[in-house]
Amino acid sequence: MPHAGIQILLVEDNPNDVKLALYAFESSKIVNEVHIVRDGREALEYIFCSDRYADRAIDHPPKVILLDLKLPYVDGLEVLRQIKTDPRTQAIPVVIMTASREDRDISEAYRLGANSYIVKPVEFENFAEVTRQLGYYWLLVNQPSLPSSPALDDPPS
Amino acid sequence: MPHAGIQILLVEDNPNDVKLALYAFESSKIVNEVHIVRDGREALEYIFCSDRYADRAIDHPPKVILLDLKLPYVDGLEVLRQIKTDPRTQAIPVVIMTASREDRDISEAYRLGANSYIVKPVEFENFAEVTRQLGYYWLLVNQPSLPSSPALDDPPS
Repeated sequence: MPHAGIQILLVEDNPNDVKLALYAFESSKIVNEVHIVRDGREALEYIFCSDRYADRAIDHPPKVILLDLKLPYVDGLEVLRQIKTDPRTQAIPVVIMTASREDRDISEAYRLGANSYIVKPVEFENFAEVTRQLGYYWLLVNQPSLPSSPALDDPPS
Repeated sequence: MPHAGIQILLVEDNPNDVKLALYAFESSKIVNEVHIVRDGREALEYIFCSDRYADRAIDHPPKVILLDLKLPYVDGLEVLRQIKTDPRTQAIPVVIMTASREDRDISEAYRLGANSYIVKPVEFENFAEVTRQLGYYWLLVNQPSLPSSPALDDPPS
C-alpha cells in the first residue's frame, strides 16, 4: 500500500530546512520513513488522501505531522484546523515547527489543537538536536491512536 | 509567588510511580520544579487556583501536566476535559501517562485534546528513560503559549 510505512509527514517549503531536517533524521536512522510536501494544499491532499494522494489509505496516518506555518496556497494554521476538526484525522499528533515565536501564532496554534509548538533554532547544531529529539519523542515515546478497529486484546467492558 | 517556578505538575496516585518519576527527573536535574498532586480533585484545584491553591496565579501555568487516567475523586479524562474546554488553561500541554493501552482510552484522550499519550513502561529502566525524555521534550524543546524561558536557541530579534 502506498505510503503505509510513512512515520513522519514533513510540511515545509524552505529547501534548506528540509535538507537540515533530513540530515538530522538520517543521523537518527529514520530518514526512509519521512515524506515531504512543500505547500499546504499538497499537505491536505496527503492527509485526506485526495487528488495526488488518492491511492493512500486514511487509516494509515503518519505517527506525527511536522507543520510549518508560512506555506504556499494554504497556510499552516488552516491545515491544522482542518486536521483537528475532522474525526478521521483529529488524533494525529501535529507539531508546529516554525520560525515564528510570536505569541499570537503560538496561542492560536494551541487553540486550534496543535499538540506541540517548536520554534526552529537558528543555529544548525541546535536545529539538528531539536529535530532528533522530536523525532525520538513522537516516534518512540508517544503512543498514537490506533486506526479504527479496536485491538485484539481489548476486553469487552 | 507560590508555585511560580513549577514546571511540571505530576498528577499521580501511585506512590511507586511518583517515586520512580522523581528519581528520573532528579537524574535530569529538574526535581525541584515538580509539584505532585495525588487525585483529580486536587489537580483541578491546582490548575484552576481554587481551594487549597487559591494563592496560585492562573497565568503562571506549569510547562506541562503529566496526568494519570485512573485517579481518586475525579478521573483523568474529566480533568483533561476541564483543562481543554477552558480558554485560560486550554494551551497547557497535557501528557497522559498511564498503564492503559486500551484504544478507547487513547482515542478518547486525543479526542478531548491530550497533547500526547504515553503508556508507562513496566520495566524500571524504560520508565526512567521515558520520563527523562518527556521531561526534556516538554521543558526544553516545546514552546509553551505564555512568554517564558525560550527553548535551546533564542535568536536576537
